[in-house]
Amino acid sequence: MIIGELNPHLRLLLGPGPSPVHPRVLKAMSSHVVGHLDPDYLAVMDDCQQMLRQVLNTRNRVTFPVSGTGSAAMEASICNMIEEGDTAVICVNGVFGERMADVAGRYGAKVIRVDAPWGRPIDPQDVKKALDAHPGAVLVGIVHAETSTGVLQPMEEIGEICRKHGALLLMDCVTSLGGVPVEVDKWGVEVAYSGTQKCLSCPPGVAPITFSERALGRARERKGKVKSWYFDVTLVEKYWGQERVYHHTGPISMSYAIREALRVVLEEGLEKRFARHALASQALRAGVEALGLSMFAQEGFRTPTLNTVTLKPGVEDGAVRRRLLNDFDIEIGGGLGPVAGKIWRIGMMGHGATQANVVYLLSALEVIFRQMGYTGSVGSAVAAATRVYAEAVS
Amino acid sequence: MIIGELNPHLRLLLGPGPSPVHPRVLKAMSSHVVGHLDPDYLAVMDDCQQMLRQVLNTRNRVTFPVSGTGSAAMEASICNMIEEGDTAVICVNGVFGERMADVAGRYGAKVIRVDAPWGRPIDPQDVKKALDAHPGAVLVGIVHAETSTGVLQPMEEIGEICRKHGALLLMDCVTSLGGVPVEVDKWGVEVAYSGTQKCLSCPPGVAPITFSERALGRARERKGKVKSWYFDVTLVEKYWGQERVYHHTGPISMSYAIREALRVVLEEGLEKRFARHALASQALRAGVEALGLSMFAQEGFRTPTLNTVTLKPGVEDGAVRRRLLNDFDIEIGGGLGPVAGKIWRIGMMGHGATQANVVYLLSALEVIFRQMGYTGSVGSAVAAATRVYAEAVS
Repeated sequence: MIIGELNPHLRLLLGPGPSPVHPRVLKAMSSHVVGHLDPDYLAVMDDCQQMLRQVLNTRNRVTFPVSGTGSAAMEASICNMIEEGDTAVICVNGVFGERMADVAGRYGAKVIRVDAPWGRPIDPQDVKKALDAHPGAVLVGIVHAETSTGVLQPMEEIGEICRKHGALLLMDCVTSLGGVPVEVDKWGVEVAYSGTQKCLSCPPGVAPITFSERALGRARERKGKVKSWYFDVTLVEKYWGQERVYHHTGPISMSYAIREALRVVLEEGLEKRFARHALASQALRAGVEALGLSMFAQEGFRTPTLNTVTLKPGVEDGAVRRRLLNDFDIEIGGGLGPVAGKIWRIGMMGHGATQANVVYLLSALEVIFRQMGYTGSVGSAVAAATRVYAEAVS
Repeated sequence: MIIGELNPHLRLLLGPGPSPVHPRVLKAMSSHVVGHLDPDYLAVMDDCQQMLRQVLNTRNRVTFPVSGTGSAAMEASICNMIEEGDTAVICVNGVFGERMADVAGRYGAKVIRVDAPWGRPIDPQDVKKALDAHPGAVLVGIVHAETSTGVLQPMEEIGEICRKHGALLLMDCVTSLGGVPVEVDKWGVEVAYSGTQKCLSCPPGVAPITFSERALGRARERKGKVKSWYFDVTLVEKYWGQERVYHHTGPISMSYAIREALRVVLEEGLEKRFARHALASQALRAGVEALGLSMFAQEGFRTPTLNTVTLKPGVEDGAVRRRLLNDFDIEIGGGLGPVAGKIWRIGMMGHGATQANVVYLLSALEVIFRQMGYTGSVGSAVAAATRVYAEAVS
C-alpha cells in the first residue's frame, strides 16, 4: 500500500484535548533541530523552566517539561515519590483519579482511596479523615480539574490539611494549567504536573512537572532506586540543572513548541487569559441551557476549561458528535466510563476559548438539533451566548 | 527577563544524534493538529505501524512508536518483559548496554552481565556460556549498534543461541535502524526498539518498538501488573490495535513527523539507503586516516552510522569541537565515560550521510588542524574522501 501525503482535516478541537494550537507554536516546531547539548538548546531549556515557574506560580528549582505526555508526567510524579509499601491517599472522582490510584498501586503503594461521586468535588474533610486514620501516609494525590467530569477541586483547604499532617500534596493540573489559577507554592503543593495540549495550546508530547525541595529530598533518600530510569528525577534534574549531565536526548522540537506556547501565554497574561476562559465557558453554558441541556458538574465546582453537559432524553450522543465532526469539522468529547453516552465534554481551552468557537459550535448544534428533530426553535442558543459576550463589554 | 523569538543556529548535526532532519519532516510537524481519536489520526497511526514493520523487517502486529525518546523505548521493552526476581543476561560493551543493565535491575531483574571491552563486539560464545550457567534466564538484552563506541554487533549467531536456550532476545537498534540492515524476524529478535533521531532523520520524541506474539504472551501472563502504566504494552496495544481503547493522548505532531520520516526512508529504499550510509562512512574514514587519526571500533565490527575516531596525541578534544561548532556550525560528539577526551563520535546518519557533509567536515577539520599546528599539509583528507566517491561511480 502506498502511503500518501499527510493531509488531515482542519478540525476545530473543542474536546477534552488536544486543543487548538496557536500558529506560532506550529511554526516554532518546524524550526531546524540543534543537538540536545547545543548551547542554543540549553538556552531553550532554561527559557522553558523559567516560564513554567511563572505559569505554575512556583519558585521550585526543579520545574521542567517531562519527555512524554501528561500521563507520563503523572507516572514521573508518582514513581519518584512512592516506594514499595508506602501508604498513599488518592482522591478519586473520575478517570484520572482512578489512573493515579492504579499507578500508585503499581509502584507498590498501599492506596487509601478518598472517593466522591463523578461530577462532585472531593470533600476536604474526607481527606482529613483518611489522614487521621492513616497517620503514616506519605502523600495525598488529587486531580485539580478532572478531565472526565469537568469538576474543579478547591485546593486551599486540602493543602492546609496536608501541611498539618505532614503529607506531601501531589496535584494533577493537566486540564487547569493556563486556564484557571494554579498556585503551586501558595497551596502547598509539593509535586504538580500538567499537560501541554489543554490550556497551554501546545501539541501533546511534553508535560510540565515541578518538584519542591522537600519532594526532591524524598526522591534522594529512597531506600532503593526509582523503578523508572527514564523518569528518575534524581538523574533528570542533573540534565535540566546547571550540571548538564546527559540523561536522555531531549525532544528538541517539542521543546521549541512548549517554549513558544509559554511565550504566547505570558504575552497575553495569566489574569486576562483566565478571564477569557471564564467568559467563553459562561457563554457556552448559556447556549447549552438554551438548547435544553444542563451542566453535569456540580455548580460552584466547574472548571471553565472543560464543560460537561448532560444530554436530555432522546439526544443521540454518537449521532450528534459524528455530524459535528463530519459536517462541521468540530470535535467535542463524549463521556467516559459510567457516563459514556450520557454527557459531552466541551473544551474551552487555551487558544480555543473564543467567542468565535462558542458561537460556531452552538450554531452547528442548533442546525443538527433541528435536523434530528430535537427542537423546533433555532437561534436561541447562539443568541444567549452572544448576550453573555455583549454584557461583558458593556 | 524577556524571552525572545526562537532563533537557534543552523547546525550541521554530525554527532551521535539528533541527525539532520529532512525539510519534509519539519513541514509535516507543523501541520494542524487533530484529536487523538480522530479518524484521520487513527489512519496516521496505521500508516506508522505499517511502515515501521517494513523498516524493522518484521510481521509483528504490535509495532508502533512509543510516546517518548529512545530511552523511553528501552524502558518500555524491559519493564514489560521483566518481573521481580527474573534472571536477565545483559550484554555490556558501552554506555547503552550499561543503561540496559541498570534499567533491568531497577525492575527487579537479577542481571547477569556479559561484558566486552569498549570498542569490541560481544562474543556470542560468552552469551552461550552465560545461558548455560543460568538456564532459567528469561531474556538476553543486547545493543545492535553501540552509540558510545560505534561497534556493530553481528546478531545472527546470538539469535540462534537464544533460540536454542529458549531465552527472549531483546535488541536495541537505536543507532542502526534505517542505516544498516535490521532484521527483527530473521534474527529471532522478540523485542526491539529504536530511536527516531538517528538514521530515520526525525526529531527525537517518539521511538519505534516491536513485540513478537511470544513477547506479548509473556507480558500478559505476568504474575503482577507491569510497574509502569505509561509503558504497559498490554494497555497500549489496545489503543494502537483495532480496539482503539483510549490509553494516553498520542503525541500527534511527532506522529506526523515519524510518518513523514518513514515515507522518506521507504521512498529512497532500504538497500539504497544502506549503501549511501556505507559509502559516506568509507569516505569519512579515508579522510580521517589522512588526518593521521585512526578508527576506534574494532575492524569488521564498525557501524557506518556512527564513526568513532581515536585522537592522536596532542589533538585537543574540546578545543577542536568548540571551533567546529562556533566557526563552522558543525556538531560532532565527544567520547563518554572511559573514552571521554580520547575519541570523537561522528554520525553519518539518515539525511546527514552525504558527500557534501563528509567533505565539509573534513575540510573544516583540515583548516582547524592547520590553525592549531597539528599538521602542515592541508587537502589530503578531502582528497581522500573525494576519491572514495569517485571510485564508487566509476
